[in-house]
Amino acid sequence: MKIIAYLDAGHTVLGVVTSPTHFVAVADVAPDLPSDLIEILELDDGLARLRESTQGRQGDRLLADVTLKPFLSRPNAMWALALNFKSHIAETGLQTNPNYPHLFLRTAASYVGANEPIFAPSESVARAFDYEGELGVVIGKPGRYIPVERALAYVAGYTCLNEGSVREYQIHNRQFGLGKNFEASGSYGPWLMTPDEFGDPARRSVLTRVNGVVRQQAPLDDMLIDVARTISYLSCGYRLRPGDLIAMGTPGALKPQPDDVEGNDLSRQYGPFPTPGLVHMRPGDSVEIEIDGLGVLRNPVVPDPSRESDTR
Amino acid sequence: MKIIAYLDAGHTVLGVVTSPTHFVAVADVAPDLPSDLIEILELDDGLARLRESTQGRQGDRLLADVTLKPFLSRPNAMWALALNFKSHIAETGLQTNPNYPHLFLRTAASYVGANEPIFAPSESVARAFDYEGELGVVIGKPGRYIPVERALAYVAGYTCLNEGSVREYQIHNRQFGLGKNFEASGSYGPWLMTPDEFGDPARRSVLTRVNGVVRQQAPLDDMLIDVARTISYLSCGYRLRPGDLIAMGTPGALKPQPDDVEGNDLSRQYGPFPTPGLVHMRPGDSVEIEIDGLGVLRNPVVPDPSRESDTR
Repeated sequence: MKIIAYLDAGHTVLGVVTSPTHFVAVADVAPDLPSDLIEILELDDGLARLRESTQGRQGDRLLADVTLKPFLSRPNAMWALALNFKSHIAETGLQTNPNYPHLFLRTAASYVGANEPIFAPSESVARAFDYEGELGVVIGKPGRYIPVERALAYVAGYTCLNEGSVREYQIHNRQFGLGKNFEASGSYGPWLMTPDEFGDPARRSVLTRVNGVVRQQAPLDDMLIDVARTISYLSCGYRLRPGDLIAMGTPGALKPQPDDVEGNDLSRQYGPFPTPGLVHMRPGDSVEIEIDGLGVLRNPVVPDPSRESDTR
Repeated sequence: MKIIAYLDAGHTVLGVVTSPTHFVAVADVAPDLPSDLIEILELDDGLARLRESTQGRQGDRLLADVTLKPFLSRPNAMWALALNFKSHIAETGLQTNPNYPHLFLRTAASYVGANEPIFAPSESVARAFDYEGELGVVIGKPGRYIPVERALAYVAGYTCLNEGSVREYQIHNRQFGLGKNFEASGSYGPWLMTPDEFGDPARRSVLTRVNGVVRQQAPLDDMLIDVARTISYLSCGYRLRPGDLIAMGTPGALKPQPDDVEGNDLSRQYGPFPTPGLVHMRPGDSVEIEIDGLGVLRNPVVPDPSRESDTR
């Protein structure tokens, strides 16, 4: 099952995708269910009821006609893993503890949905604004002290995720802080795919394209700490909650293409980790994160439109 | 004005404190206002209407009769500063950048309200569970690119805060991650005090007592990066939102008392930073954070009651 959130008359509501082009509105087929995904996950039988109501349905609405939105409204926690792919550890020259997931937090305001614009900071603020193609994991039920072997039963589904990062701010101090939390600097989507449809994440791969050129590509079994171990670790101290998001970390950059001036030219790179094959995200770019068997998350990059006069 | 959140027939509602012993229910004096503090702050004139409705009122309810709750429901961000007091930087031996606030995030689930129990991890999970007495700052209106000299106008109020930390987990990796986000490991309260009543934070001091013994005490002007600079920095990349919380960092430990076996005995300390005068929080302790002119936040410490069977 693939669940989307989209705008309907100014409100964010839910749909279930039924074909490459069509979906059904949850309000049409399951009017008794909440219009918020986290509230559905908080019901013991929420996902099961949604599946039952939509099974075998023909979609009567066009995906192309709607504006997708992030499907998680104010989750308690949006975790992310640093340095979880060997290729990314190598290119940064940084160290991580091989026994524990390297965790930090982002806020809901740092993420937009599929097709929504990602904000590039103005050049006077920062220039090393980088994509990070990742697998996103959404928790489906509450849990503490979860053994590794039962951890995947707590997953509601998976999504593509761009953990967009502002490198100059990320290295102001040891803690990433604001550098991983710029307004609308990342994205996830286009939908939540349930595990029965996605299968074992370790058999999939993640890929990042900037303006059509592949910049990252790696099998998801290259993770240092996998999804199950991350969930089990978190549950030692924290009660996982329906709707919590975990961004599983990003792989390294691919080698530059022979005719790829940008990726070969380190003088066009800013920030602490100049890397052959890496290009920064800039206004006008189109960035895609693709996970095979799941889908493609596409976002245009625009200049951050915020002004001081946005205050009241 | 001192605003509390408390339980009324199972719901968290708001009150305004009118004397050391009494308060009025917001629903009684301002029935048109939302029952949620963040929703009040989101109104242009929310705080002003609350002040008008309660001014000169005699409280008809007893503070002693109600259970206080955290007054921020699901804010977008709960920021915290690491290494922001010179005395704490010295005792840890760690470094921080003197030009930028050293920021990380906590989740709402990591905080309880005044008088509610704080959960100590079981000894098999961790033993270095430490108090951090701090000033908490709550944002009152949205803002980007806020100049330092106008930053304090974005503050809705101040509170006492215990930024409880699990040291063994905090040092698993560079990012604090789970170590700063154990379930119910910290607290804030007892109320939000508005700036007109609190005055300049730099003229106040913070103090931590464990079982009646003073363990931390420092003037708030000993901060490396003050409230205004922290707000201004965040607003470079992030749109501050009503209800966002900023924990301003903790001072170092006081010297042990002459008759204080515990604080002199480093063999009773666990974790990475054994410090004369520091005691860990343990079940049965009573921990108080006091900020002069603001109030006292008191919490009992209990064993974390969570079980694997809390899952569904």
